[in-house]
Amino acid sequence: MKFNFIEGGVCAPAGFLASGVLAGIKKNSVKKDLALVFSERDCCAAGMFTKNVVKAEPVLITRDRVSPDNPCSRQIRGIVANSGNANACTGEEGRRNALRMTDSVEKELKVPAGSVLVCSTGVIGQQLNIDAVEKAVPSLAAGLGKNGNADARVAIMTTDTVYKECAVEFEIKGKKVRIGAMAKGSGMIHINMGTMLAFITTDADISQKMLYKALKTAGDATFNCVSVDGDTSTNDTLLILANGAAGNIPVTAENEDYGIFLEALTLLSTEMAKKIAGDGEGATHLIECNVEGAKSLESARVLAKSVISSSLVKAAFFGKDANWGRILCALGYSGELFNPRTVDLSFENSKGRVEVYHQGVPLDFDEEKAKVILSEQEVKIYVKMNEGTAKASAWGCDLTYDYVKINGDYRT
Amino acid sequence: MKFNFIEGGVCAPAGFLASGVLAGIKKNSVKKDLALVFSERDCCAAGMFTKNVVKAEPVLITRDRVSPDNPCSRQIRGIVANSGNANACTGEEGRRNALRMTDSVEKELKVPAGSVLVCSTGVIGQQLNIDAVEKAVPSLAAGLGKNGNADARVAIMTTDTVYKECAVEFEIKGKKVRIGAMAKGSGMIHINMGTMLAFITTDADISQKMLYKALKTAGDATFNCVSVDGDTSTNDTLLILANGAAGNIPVTAENEDYGIFLEALTLLSTEMAKKIAGDGEGATHLIECNVEGAKSLESARVLAKSVISSSLVKAAFFGKDANWGRILCALGYSGELFNPRTVDLSFENSKGRVEVYHQGVPLDFDEEKAKVILSEQEVKIYVKMNEGTAKASAWGCDLTYDYVKINGDYRT
Repeated sequence: MKFNFIEGGVCAPAGFLASGVLAGIKKNSVKKDLALVFSERDCCAAGMFTKNVVKAEPVLITRDRVSPDNPCSRQIRGIVANSGNANACTGEEGRRNALRMTDSVEKELKVPAGSVLVCSTGVIGQQLNIDAVEKAVPSLAAGLGKNGNADARVAIMTTDTVYKECAVEFEIKGKKVRIGAMAKGSGMIHINMGTMLAFITTDADISQKMLYKALKTAGDATFNCVSVDGDTSTNDTLLILANGAAGNIPVTAENEDYGIFLEALTLLSTEMAKKIAGDGEGATHLIECNVEGAKSLESARVLAKSVISSSLVKAAFFGKDANWGRILCALGYSGELFNPRTVDLSFENSKGRVEVYHQGVPLDFDEEKAKVILSEQEVKIYVKMNEGTAKASAWGCDLTYDYVKINGDYRT
Repeated sequence: MKFNFIEGGVCAPAGFLASGVLAGIKKNSVKKDLALVFSERDCCAAGMFTKNVVKAEPVLITRDRVSPDNPCSRQIRGIVANSGNANACTGEEGRRNALRMTDSVEKELKVPAGSVLVCSTGVIGQQLNIDAVEKAVPSLAAGLGKNGNADARVAIMTTDTVYKECAVEFEIKGKKVRIGAMAKGSGMIHINMGTMLAFITTDADISQKMLYKALKTAGDATFNCVSVDGDTSTNDTLLILANGAAGNIPVTAENEDYGIFLEALTLLSTEMAKKIAGDGEGATHLIECNVEGAKSLESARVLAKSVISSSLVKAAFFGKDANWGRILCALGYSGELFNPRTVDLSFENSKGRVEVYHQGVPLDFDEEKAKVILSEQEVKIYVKMNEGTAKASAWGCDLTYDYVKINGDYRT
C-alpha cells in the first residue's frame, strides 16, 4: 500500500475549506487568532477530549455535539477555533460566549444550529473577548478557500514556533482518499490527550462508529504518547471530520478498507505527534523513546511515556548528557513491575548508535560518540525489556531555559 | 505540650555521635562526601524507601536490615552514607561495594555484622569508588563526636545549597526526650518517598512496632508530600534510629506518650520537608499548597501534591505570575473527581492575601498586590474544595533556569 504525503493540510481532502483572521482576542495581538475549517457537505465527526476534571466550556459543547447519541454528530459542517484565550474556568459567562461563537459562525454560513464545533486555547481564567470574535466572523467566513489552511494553521498557534500540518493521500479500492491535519501544541501537553488542539479532515466515506474507532486507535498510539511538560490541559481536543467526498465504498466494518484507512490515519498522526513534541515550549530536541520486548502494549506505553515525561531525562538531553541512569530511574517509577537486571538501553539516530546498559550492567561507552549523537535535533532512546514482544513509542522534548522563560510570565 | 527546637541535629539526642570526611568519591571533589551517624547503644530502627522498581544496592541492603522480621533491626548501631555516587544500576559489583562499605565501618567500630545501615546518593550507573571509601573509614570512625553533625550534614549534600538539619526537645512524663534529623534533598525528589536521604535519631525508648508506625504516619504527611521535579529516585531513604537513652517508660502502644512522640516527630518532619522543598534544585521560592474542605485525607493529599508537582504552576511562581488557572488545571488532572464550580483559590503569606477564584468564577484581583505576595520566598496557596472537612498540605518549589542548568550537565 502506498501513502503519499501531500500539501494542503486540512484543505487537502475534497470538499474542505479553511480560513484564519486576526480578531484581536488578546490586546495588541498581531498574529491571526481565529480559525475556521469548513466542509461543503455534512460530516461524520468524532473526538477525543482532555481527561482533566476541569474542562473548558468549548470542550463541553463540542464533546456533546460529536457524541454518537447526538444526531448532530453526523451532520457536522465545521470547526471554529481561537487562540489567545482558553475560555476555561470562566463559568456560565464562558459557556454563553462559547455558544455565541458557534452561533455567529452557523448564522453567517447559513448552516444548522449545532453543526459547528468550537475550540479555544490560550490563557485560563479570563473571559473571552466575544465581541471581537463576533465582529471578525463575517470576514472569517468570507475568507474560506482551498488555500485557507495557511491562515488557519497559524491562527490556532499560541507559543508554537512553527505551524503543524500534514496531509496524506492513498487509495481505497481505486478511489483516491485524503486525510489532512493541523494542530497547535507547545505547552501544557501531556499524555491523556496531550494534544492541545488537533483537527483532522478526511474525504473518506466512513461510518461514525468506524471513524471513532480509528481515531481512538490511532490517537492512543500517537497523540496520547506525547508529553511536553506533564500538564494535561483543560482544553485538549482531537477532532476528525469525514465528509465522504472521496466516493469510496462506505467503510462500515473492520474490513480491509478500514485497515488501510487506519494505517494512513496512524501514519499522519505519528507525524503530527512528532511535530508537537519537537516544538514543545523551548525545546531544542525531539526525544523518541522506543520500548521493545515488553509484557504488553499497555506496559510498553506506560514505560515509554514515563521516560519522556521525566524532567531529569529532559534536562539531561538539553545538556547533551548521556545520563542514562535517569532513564532507568524513570522506567522504575512508571508503575510497571520489571527486573532492572534484564534491561538493555541504547541511544541512536543518524549519527550512530551507542549502547550504555546491558542486562543490569553499566557499559563503558564512548562519551564523545554519545555527545555527537545527542547533539542532533532528533534522538531515539531504545529500551529493551526482554520480557515479552510488545512495543510502543512515545515522544517528548528536552527541558530548557526557554521553557522556564516562556512559562514564567505567560499571561502578560 | 511544649516542643522546643534545639541545636545539634542528629547528635542532639543522648547517645548519638556523628562525623563526616572527604573520601574523594568523585574526582576533584573538595566537599566532605562520607558521613557516619553512630549510637553508643543498640537502636530500634525503622525505614521508608523509594517505591521505584529500580532500587539502588544500598537501599536493598538497608531495607533488609531494618525489616521487623530481621533481629538486626533492633540492634542497629549506625548509618554510613556517601554522596557523589548513588550506587544504583550497578549490578552485582554494586552490591558487593555496598556490603564492603558497611563491613569496613562495622569492623572499624567493632560492632556486629549487619548493625550498620548504608545509603548512597549521587550519579546513577557508575561504580562506587570503594577503595576511597575504605581508605577513609578509619578517620571517619576516629572523628565521631558530639559535634560531628556539622560535618555529617555537609557530607551527604549533593547539589543542595544549604544543609538541612533540625532537632526538637520535649518531655514524656517528666523525662526529656529529643529527636534530631539531617537530610539531603535537591533534585529527583517526588512524592512517594520524596526525600532522598533523611536520617532521624531519637533517644526515646520506643518499640520497633510503634517506631515504624510513627515514622509512617509522620512521613506520609510530610516527606511524602514534597516534590521538586516529579522524579522518584532510586535511592530515597528515610531512616529513624531510637536508642532509648532518654529513659522514658517504653512506648509500646498507641497511648498518650505515643501521641506526644508522634506530634514531635511530625513537627520535626514538617520542618525538614519545608527545608527540602525550599532548597529544591535552582529554587527561588518555597510553595506550600494547602487543600481544605476535601472529601478525604487521601483526596486532599492527592490534590495538594498535584498542584506542587505541576511544571506550569512552578514556572509561574518563578515568574511571580498569579496564573491561578494552572492551579485549577493541576487539581483537575490529579485523578480526583470534583466540581470546579465549588472551588475557591487564594494566595497568602506575610505580605497579605489575595483571592483569585470563587465558586467557579474568576475574581477581579489586585495584580500589584498579588505580585508583592508572590515576590516573597515563601508563598502559600489555599484551595477550598467545599465538599468535606479533610485537609492536607504539600510542599514544592518553583521551576527555574538554574534547575535546567544544574540538570543539563550533572555528571561532569
